[in-house]
Amino acid sequence: MENPHTYSPFDFIIFGATGDLTTRKLLPALYYRYLDGQLPSNTRIIGTARSPLTDEDFRKRAQDGLNQFVQEEDHSPEKIEDFIKLIYYISLDGADPNGKWADIEKLLNSDKANTVRIFYFATAPRLYGDICDNLSNKKLLTKTTRVVLEKPIGTSLATAEEINSRVGKHLPENHIFRIDHYLGKETVQNILALRFANPVFERLWSSDSIDYVEITAAETVGVGKRGGYYDGAGALRDMVQNHLLQVLCMVAMDPPISLNADDLRNEKLKVLRSLKPMTDEMIKTDTVRGQYTANTVNGEQMVSYLEELKKDKSNTETFVAIKAQINTSRWTGVPFYLRTGKRLAEKTSEIIIQFKKSAWSLFPTAPQPNRLHIRIQPDEGVSLSMQVKDPSKSHTSLRSTFIDIAFSPAFHIRYPDSYEGLLMDAVKGDPLLFIRRDEVDAAWKWIEPILDGWARDVIPLSQYKSGSWGPQASQQLLAKDGHIWHEDMP
Amino acid sequence: MENPHTYSPFDFIIFGATGDLTTRKLLPALYYRYLDGQLPSNTRIIGTARSPLTDEDFRKRAQDGLNQFVQEEDHSPEKIEDFIKLIYYISLDGADPNGKWADIEKLLNSDKANTVRIFYFATAPRLYGDICDNLSNKKLLTKTTRVVLEKPIGTSLATAEEINSRVGKHLPENHIFRIDHYLGKETVQNILALRFANPVFERLWSSDSIDYVEITAAETVGVGKRGGYYDGAGALRDMVQNHLLQVLCMVAMDPPISLNADDLRNEKLKVLRSLKPMTDEMIKTDTVRGQYTANTVNGEQMVSYLEELKKDKSNTETFVAIKAQINTSRWTGVPFYLRTGKRLAEKTSEIIIQFKKSAWSLFPTAPQPNRLHIRIQPDEGVSLSMQVKDPSKSHTSLRSTFIDIAFSPAFHIRYPDSYEGLLMDAVKGDPLLFIRRDEVDAAWKWIEPILDGWARDVIPLSQYKSGSWGPQASQQLLAKDGHIWHEDMP
Repeated sequence: MENPHTYSPFDFIIFGATGDLTTRKLLPALYYRYLDGQLPSNTRIIGTARSPLTDEDFRKRAQDGLNQFVQEEDHSPEKIEDFIKLIYYISLDGADPNGKWADIEKLLNSDKANTVRIFYFATAPRLYGDICDNLSNKKLLTKTTRVVLEKPIGTSLATAEEINSRVGKHLPENHIFRIDHYLGKETVQNILALRFANPVFERLWSSDSIDYVEITAAETVGVGKRGGYYDGAGALRDMVQNHLLQVLCMVAMDPPISLNADDLRNEKLKVLRSLKPMTDEMIKTDTVRGQYTANTVNGEQMVSYLEELKKDKSNTETFVAIKAQINTSRWTGVPFYLRTGKRLAEKTSEIIIQFKKSAWSLFPTAPQPNRLHIRIQPDEGVSLSMQVKDPSKSHTSLRSTFIDIAFSPAFHIRYPDSYEGLLMDAVKGDPLLFIRRDEVDAAWKWIEPILDGWARDVIPLSQYKSGSWGPQASQQLLAKDGHIWHEDMP
Repeated sequence: MENPHTYSPFDFIIFGATGDLTTRKLLPALYYRYLDGQLPSNTRIIGTARSPLTDEDFRKRAQDGLNQFVQEEDHSPEKIEDFIKLIYYISLDGADPNGKWADIEKLLNSDKANTVRIFYFATAPRLYGDICDNLSNKKLLTKTTRVVLEKPIGTSLATAEEINSRVGKHLPENHIFRIDHYLGKETVQNILALRFANPVFERLWSSDSIDYVEITAAETVGVGKRGGYYDGAGALRDMVQNHLLQVLCMVAMDPPISLNADDLRNEKLKVLRSLKPMTDEMIKTDTVRGQYTANTVNGEQMVSYLEELKKDKSNTETFVAIKAQINTSRWTGVPFYLRTGKRLAEKTSEIIIQFKKSAWSLFPTAPQPNRLHIRIQPDEGVSLSMQVKDPSKSHTSLRSTFIDIAFSPAFHIRYPDSYEGLLMDAVKGDPLLFIRRDEVDAAWKWIEPILDGWARDVIPLSQYKSGSWGPQASQQLLAKDGHIWHEDMP
């Protein structure tokens, strides 16, 4: 990652350092930034958690994690050896005022006034308030301190407001970095360039030319070990309230007046506030919730959600499809179909911009409408479906083709993991790609009536077979509008 | 070339069969069609010219030509052997009523009523009328006869009208196929698919989104052996009146109501008739004519036009640049810059659609406007210049990239030479890609005032160095409008 920014040594303190996120994402991300020279030698990475580990224990864990989660070609035993020397561990319950807070203080860079201090909250969100109280009481919050908050920020508007209030008591909003790793994806950021640096696309970007939009985040895995957390959350809270609505904002927002963080977030907020509120009637026609059942796919036996959970009954959705409507001059009449689920047919996060078809056709076979396909994961890329003359056939023969607009192999570089950029943004103090408090609130305001309607069983919880694309009702959701999920297109 | 059309045996008679066109283009094209099974065994190819050759002589010439002008991988001694058995030769001056016309008659398929008969005129155009008179007098024109006329159709409106009248006396317009090989290019035909089968492009295809259009046909060679003809013609007659204006029509025309030949040609005619007529004042500001001078390029000594011609003086232009304006609702205000020349820096025929830039810029560096690049030769292809996020750089770093929309390697096939399709269109009787008489007239009507103004030296004949992009005045032509030829873009 080339970057003109030069970094001073900083302190990076992780709460919940023995968790999966630290091993899989945070330490590998910091390692890559280290390789690129962005972690000066006085930088400290301090893990904290309740487990009684020594520095050496934790470094060993870190080393194992890097060997597993860093790409083979970027393994360098010497570099890893050097990197883990930056790492320390303190056994501490962040919610406990009587913990070893003084030990943290001792490790921190002594130049308080100038050293950036990042407290990364990778614990259960209900602890965020307590941790902040402790950081404040122990005088660990300096003017250059930023806290990074992992999702989920609450499970409802009220709980989100509580977390945000408690954190906000001690820190100004511009020091609170609510992370959504979808915004760290190159392709999601590329939406800004596509739309606002290419007049040809910006001119097409409205109900004049666009028929509908699909936003899908599909997983093939089940809940696995996360069942305990997941059964209390469900797909709507786990994926839609944050990731899918953020992606929707990037696609739908009006041009911001600048790329300053607040200008961008003002536009995202406008989108969230323009979402048509869900009435019970709309919940019946415009939402689908599902739960996966057992199935055998390619000889592999997949158990149901309930079996995985070892429960007899659960009302929790593992699949959501929603027709969202945005009441703005640009988008009224253009449905945004959001969809996410576990145990689906394919692992993919993607956006489909389906352009309107022409009612008129010059060619003997009606041409397919154009479609912009923005792939977020597993591979990142953007392609446009086009009709071209079928070379050497008759003058009127068309052929469909996909053209790649931007994708990793074209640039012959590794696309960095989304955490790499976001962590360094927090170090730099650039909140552009982080979620502002009012965005969290607005997203919950739109989500809550759906949660509430579902809790009252306004619509039934549909079942769907593992390995499918969700319940039949998901196809019907689009079919009612004369639309079709892109994977079902001919 | 896959084609659902099945061909019956046909007779294909070439006037001017000892010329370059026959050797380089017509016979290789027919050979490729033979390879694809489109020339049934009773098909006859009859070459005629004044040279006293035997069938064997001419077949030997044909064989040598095929070995030279057919791609190496398509050489097959047996196939070539079989193909040339279809070829005959008759020594005949097409303008001579006392020639061996009866010998032609004898060779022709006896099933007159049903056999398609193509007379291909590859002679000097002043002979077309005489040849037609003879064909008529000798009763060689059947109901299934078509004549194919090579350019140039005249050297002025009056001479074009005379040729067309004399040919038209004997044949109805829909049996007269005026060939323009630019229309046989896959990429030129692809303009129809791009524009009319892709609503995203059709929506952009007007002065709302397009800033200006460049149409260039540039050669690196000089006049060579064609000096005698060329000095009497010049670039305006040789290239602009036909090829460049035809390409302009394909880019600029309104959607035809169908792909029937006359519906398409009606729209092309509308464009030609909408060209803003050139006054002397406009000739001064909107046209450039040039003649190449000697230069040394990469160590290669290039002589001037006059030296090549072995003359002291010539007023003939080897370079033309013209700002054409189309007075229609779609195009008023969008200049179409036409440019052609010999001894230019690069061999290329291409169209550039320069989209408008946004006056607004969200990103720190003003993005380049989008540009659609339609390459006609030497390679064929279409690409769009885009701005994308520079992966892994800062959130606001852009990178320019070109995306390929349609090009030969993508389809893993050979793009057929333009003559292949056009010759078989004539056999099928499909005039879609041939020039109608009124188009020729309309093109000359627009060209003549320029020829006339130049003859009166309304502007001087500029000189330009061999290997350059033409006279300085060509850059100035665009600069006056704040525009720039694409090869000069940063």
